[in-house]
Amino acid sequence: MTLRVAMIGYGFMGATHSVGWRQAPRMFDLPDAVEMAVIVGRNEDAVAAAAEKWGWAESATDWREVIARDDIDIVDIVTPGDSHAEIAIAALDAGKHVLVEKPLANSVAEAEAMTDAAARAAANGVRSMVGFTYRRVPAVTFLRDLVAEGVVGTVQQVRAAYRQDWLVDPQMPLAWRLQKEHAGSGALGDIGAHIIDMTQFVTGQTVDAVSGTMDTIVKERPMLGAGELGSLSSLKGAAESLGQVTVDDVALFTGRLANGALVSFEATRFATGRKNALTIEVSGDKGALAFDLEDLNSLQFYDGTAPEDRQGFTKILVTEAQHPYLAAWWPAGHMLGYEHGFSHQVVDLVTAIHEGSDPHPSFAEGLSVQRVLDAVERSSEHESAWVRTDAGSLTTGR
Amino acid sequence: MTLRVAMIGYGFMGATHSVGWRQAPRMFDLPDAVEMAVIVGRNEDAVAAAAEKWGWAESATDWREVIARDDIDIVDIVTPGDSHAEIAIAALDAGKHVLVEKPLANSVAEAEAMTDAAARAAANGVRSMVGFTYRRVPAVTFLRDLVAEGVVGTVQQVRAAYRQDWLVDPQMPLAWRLQKEHAGSGALGDIGAHIIDMTQFVTGQTVDAVSGTMDTIVKERPMLGAGELGSLSSLKGAAESLGQVTVDDVALFTGRLANGALVSFEATRFATGRKNALTIEVSGDKGALAFDLEDLNSLQFYDGTAPEDRQGFTKILVTEAQHPYLAAWWPAGHMLGYEHGFSHQVVDLVTAIHEGSDPHPSFAEGLSVQRVLDAVERSSEHESAWVRTDAGSLTTGR
Amino acid sequence: MTLRVAMIGYGFMGATHSVGWRQAPRMFDLPDAVEMAVIVGRNEDAVAAAAEKWGWAESATDWREVIARDDIDIVDIVTPGDSHAEIAIAALDAGKHVLVEKPLANSVAEAEAMTDAAARAAANGVRSMVGFTYRRVPAVTFLRDLVAEGVVGTVQQVRAAYRQDWLVDPQMPLAWRLQKEHAGSGALGDIGAHIIDMTQFVTGQTVDAVSGTMDTIVKERPMLGAGELGSLSSLKGAAESLGQVTVDDVALFTGRLANGALVSFEATRFATGRKNALTIEVSGDKGALAFDLEDLNSLQFYDGTAPEDRQGFTKILVTEAQHPYLAAWWPAGHMLGYEHGFSHQVVDLVTAIHEGSDPHPSFAEGLSVQRVLDAVERSSEHESAWVRTDAGSLTTGR
Amino acid sequence: MTLRVAMIGYGFMGATHSVGWRQAPRMFDLPDAVEMAVIVGRNEDAVAAAAEKWGWAESATDWREVIARDDIDIVDIVTPGDSHAEIAIAALDAGKHVLVEKPLANSVAEAEAMTDAAARAAANGVRSMVGFTYRRVPAVTFLRDLVAEGVVGTVQQVRAAYRQDWLVDPQMPLAWRLQKEHAGSGALGDIGAHIIDMTQFVTGQTVDAVSGTMDTIVKERPMLGAGELGSLSSLKGAAESLGQVTVDDVALFTGRLANGALVSFEATRFATGRKNALTIEVSGDKGALAFDLEDLNSLQFYDGTAPEDRQGFTKILVTEAQHPYLAAWWPAGHMLGYEHGFSHQVVDLVTAIHEGSDPHPSFAEGLSVQRVLDAVERSSEHESAWVRTDAGSLTTGR
Repeated sequence: MTLRVAMIGYGFMGATHSVGWRQAPRMFDLPDAVEMAVIVGRNEDAVAAAAEKWGWAESATDWREVIARDDIDIVDIVTPGDSHAEIAIAALDAGKHVLVEKPLANSVAEAEAMTDAAARAAANGVRSMVGFTYRRVPAVTFLRDLVAEGVVGTVQQVRAAYRQDWLVDPQMPLAWRLQKEHAGSGALGDIGAHIIDMTQFVTGQTVDAVSGTMDTIVKERPMLGAGELGSLSSLKGAAESLGQVTVDDVALFTGRLANGALVSFEATRFATGRKNALTIEVSGDKGALAFDLEDLNSLQFYDGTAPEDRQGFTKILVTEAQHPYLAAWWPAGHMLGYEHGFSHQVVDLVTAIHEGSDPHPSFAEGLSVQRVLDAVERSSEHESAWVRTDAGSLTTGR
Repeated sequence: MTLRVAMIGYGFMGATHSVGWRQAPRMFDLPDAVEMAVIVGRNEDAVAAAAEKWGWAESATDWREVIARDDIDIVDIVTPGDSHAEIAIAALDAGKHVLVEKPLANSVAEAEAMTDAAARAAANGVRSMVGFTYRRVPAVTFLRDLVAEGVVGTVQQVRAAYRQDWLVDPQMPLAWRLQKEHAGSGALGDIGAHIIDMTQFVTGQTVDAVSGTMDTIVKERPMLGAGELGSLSSLKGAAESLGQVTVDDVALFTGRLANGALVSFEATRFATGRKNALTIEVSGDKGALAFDLEDLNSLQFYDGTAPEDRQGFTKILVTEAQHPYLAAWWPAGHMLGYEHGFSHQVVDLVTAIHEGSDPHPSFAEGLSVQRVLDAVERSSEHESAWVRTDAGSLTTGR
Repeated sequence: MTLRVAMIGYGFMGATHSVGWRQAPRMFDLPDAVEMAVIVGRNEDAVAAAAEKWGWAESATDWREVIARDDIDIVDIVTPGDSHAEIAIAALDAGKHVLVEKPLANSVAEAEAMTDAAARAAANGVRSMVGFTYRRVPAVTFLRDLVAEGVVGTVQQVRAAYRQDWLVDPQMPLAWRLQKEHAGSGALGDIGAHIIDMTQFVTGQTVDAVSGTMDTIVKERPMLGAGELGSLSSLKGAAESLGQVTVDDVALFTGRLANGALVSFEATRFATGRKNALTIEVSGDKGALAFDLEDLNSLQFYDGTAPEDRQGFTKILVTEAQHPYLAAWWPAGHMLGYEHGFSHQVVDLVTAIHEGSDPHPSFAEGLSVQRVLDAVERSSEHESAWVRTDAGSLTTGR
Repeated sequence: MTLRVAMIGYGFMGATHSVGWRQAPRMFDLPDAVEMAVIVGRNEDAVAAAAEKWGWAESATDWREVIARDDIDIVDIVTPGDSHAEIAIAALDAGKHVLVEKPLANSVAEAEAMTDAAARAAANGVRSMVGFTYRRVPAVTFLRDLVAEGVVGTVQQVRAAYRQDWLVDPQMPLAWRLQKEHAGSGALGDIGAHIIDMTQFVTGQTVDAVSGTMDTIVKERPMLGAGELGSLSSLKGAAESLGQVTVDDVALFTGRLANGALVSFEATRFATGRKNALTIEVSGDKGALAFDLEDLNSLQFYDGTAPEDRQGFTKILVTEAQHPYLAAWWPAGHMLGYEHGFSHQVVDLVTAIHEGSDPHPSFAEGLSVQRVLDAVERSSEHESAWVRTDAGSLTTGR
């Protein structure tokens, strides 16, 4: 059969998801065909241009009408977070499989409602998935598999950081991402969400409690004119008066995993010189594994069971046919990039739909991340005292 | 207008070129549209499957018929090297723009004939290009631009190496790539060609003379059964009797650039642990630049004019919008992979056709590489004594 | 004149300090000669052997007698932390210049008493210094100089970590370092002290408040027999019954500098595969600097004022004659090791004595570290809520 | 017993050898004591100052008188290469154990005479050794041990390079090191000798033939005034007229080992940005090992027998007690530097003298290096055609 896809939204994530839908069927042997049927956005001309550019067969302006169509099988939601809940719940209730870009929602309450909707839908064989695509960087998937296999033994400590530097320049303007009413939170929700999900993914454990500190380093920034919500870089230095930054620039928090192990988290947009440095290091009683998104084709593995005089971190190029997703791509040593995770996401979603299984990360996993984010905010408001996330137990999976 | 493309061949390079044709129009604003019209191969079923898989509108089995069609504008040749000359010359003479995968040909004579054909065609506004796509890894293009800008000053020494290890295993069978009659040469022609071209590209100078040594380390390998010419890895260990390896496993050579600077070259399939390590380092009297394909999003730059106490190699992440080709892709710090050079190749070819200019690398540049390869073979046969390449002067360019 | 030195203690730090006293006069042009006069320890035979081995002219068993001698100018204290206060105060009161190995003391109260004694002594021209020798790794000194010069601009965020893994093995026995009554604290006091001092040193700012979490991962370890307090590795696996570990294995804490910038600290003995990984990264609004003790001859510098397309971390080999301390050693590119900081410490102490200036780190700087350690412990005991260190303002210096 | 040492010469190598004699007895349990008895140089005041500075008991100006003394056991020769033969032969004939800094001599003839003298002396229990101290960087020694153990299997290819950049500046003056009559050769003899020796050491094989090219990049440099032969850096830019550089700036050569494996060698003083980059990589049919002197505490090991999906280069910190020489120094993860090889050299020489065995590298091994150097020069003069070294078989060893 052919799965017909409607994508709601057409910003940066619209571009990446389009690559996924375009490339996955050409490189992998998908069990079902996929068709890029329709792209939806409010601005008629702009969304038509996006359809033309990215290869969607049609464009439309009313997502409700699209969701109601019989010829749509999958709804892919890449709008800003504050609209995720409404669209996703409607789509699930309409019997469409749903892929929603991370974060699942802007609040725990929305995420809970979405998770409930996903559970109802699952009972009818309708699948839902949240787009933490960094799970599908092959080296990250492989890291998770190695932890699950036991190569590091019992996890005893984890470090997870996501460091960028695009806000160091104080002339960077006060766009919607820096306003709490639009963005929910700053570095925490945007990039902190990734490292929380990745930690839970690779360890197979929930973050049960946190102690955190959030901070805004540049407290005022140039305001944009009315209607200017576009890309930050294009607007740099364009404004005249200053407005208040109402979200965090940096969030530092310590988490405790279900098994008691401590995790240090850092989400920052002020790590001068670090462009997209998502790093994670898992230390266990038998070994360690470390990953850096700025070197995304490799994985560092320390085998504590090797002969003592030849232990060390092994830099594994995760580009062999034996590694996750790699057999479909190029010969050994030929590098993948950032975008390939979006193809892998399509592969896994389509495979799950075909097999009738629930894909990961589930909405419940997305909700779990949301609860950790919420707990960090509460801890930060209460002198950084420890707060339980009430994450509950959780089945995580590839 | 729309440029309609016919691709001849459908092996590994068929897959990569297909990605280029598919992705370039979706990510870049091409001056003309492109259409993946027809893919050509001898095996009817196999080529039809490739068309379906990779998204070509039609498939065909006779390349001559396809070249004769009026509705084809560009012929993209990804067959083995021994058929390049015949197809490319026919296509050029038929008035089709031609892209031919490297190496340009298996011999200097063929390459000369092709270059003559390209010159004739160019007089009629027909464009030709050879596919040394590593030029279009953004960090390599940027390296070349920096050398041209003068940041390293006068080039005084160059090191270029391409190291792989897939032949270390003596059970790897005697496929066509290891037989001189099919492959022309071994490591030299296959991967050595890349580092010769890259050296000429980044320095803007020809390699005028060489002294070289070629060697075959594993001299006999398991023979394949009749008709088995498929991928090497799938055949590993399948055969019973041993046959003679008739090409080089390793080629070490020293070259002299037009300005007198020495270049050390190494092309090897026996660099245990090195999967796809194409490295180049250019040393000048003001600075140095270094690149490694296993870390392809970065470039190392040593600025010898910086204050003495803070000189060092700067690791530039070549992922900013200011860097070559990058504005069309993702935000800063988001990595590209091996395949993106094939999109960039399409961008440059289509742009040149639209603008009526000759794209690079030209067939003349491909011929120049062929002459260096030939000189290395002759030197190796004559006790490694220096041999002139008679490369002539050459306009190289992006 | 000649400065005659008495060293109290002869463990691991006795060996390193001996190298410093032996090498500094041979490699540097010290303003005064130094003489390794006497080494002091309770075990007569052992200390005599140490004198013979390390080149001290005499040995003695009673530090009070040694301090009372007229022919001793400098007292160098390398005993465990719980005896620092008594010996140092006595030596200062006796008019001897004092060098005391870090940590200054095991408690704030002791450190305060020592600082008072140092102030009294300074009034009489008697000098005191605490041995945070990592300040004198040339790359660290240079990092500090560059921050002071303003190359990173305003410090906005700092990361400091000290990671080791020697306790991952649960068979590592319960030595005195793991017992609170002897060691005061675990990872926090032993290695956390280094990163607190280094942070204050390189930023020139005090850590004014902290929120921290301390944890013991392996809670019971094999007990040692009576009198066994020797080196841990020699005792591994030797014991039979289990005893309680009463100090922390890992301390994670967030600090706030005087200017408001956040610092993330990690001190751990459970970072599997990390042997001696003291790392620090200082992010400012103009650039960043990063250091790793496992690569101690280099410094990473990100210059945010460089042209945008060629920014990146520059790996400066801090081995040039222009770099701190280096002119006395070897030609450019010739590496130093861990021990060289101990020579540099001697150089700086002897120079300060000769010049009549107060050397750094002063006892007041050591006390400041002690206050931060104390605040981390209190925060950890109170749900990680923020605690002020009352560090006061402080003059730090090279 | 106590071995009394006379050192002839007091330049840069005098400083490093002095560190070795001073430190080795303090850190290692030597079987015999050593005493720094006398340092010899022609300039009476200068050598007296050196004695005072470095801790030699006496100074003297006539090496013949010193060699004749009964109370001298070891003669350590650190003069320029053109005097090695005369002094070493005289010392050996006088029954003194001899350590001579590399290169053994400036010509094959001298090296042969010295080797003959060493053989005569050995018959009387007198030991001789040449100072290729890089063998005694622990990571290099360990690399050699691992090759000998078979972890890389059969050696199939080797890359060895020594890259510096101190001649890139054309204002660097024409010192004696750049004049053939004084220095013998340039980069080849000075730093090329190191990589030849290291290759023979780690593989246990001789370099039997070479094809090489030598080149002088900056052909004229500022002349020094009469009598100025001092350190290059102090003289930079001091001169007025230009003189001819008569030695090589760069030597590129290919060697063939006894087992047929190819080695690529590069010795250059024009590798802009590379300060002291001695690198070697040994590729075998089971694995590979790689070392870089700019990161001298680590060794890269690729284990080709590991599971395919987790192969990669392991960065071993060679700082554990199990590693060569390390037990005498600091705890795990505490770095050594350049100078420590000179202590290890003393350890091995004194141990061999005590045990009555012949230390390595022997004069025969030094002669073997000299023959390779000579063959490279002859090849370079003959269009780089292959030249046999007639190195003969050789016992190499730690």
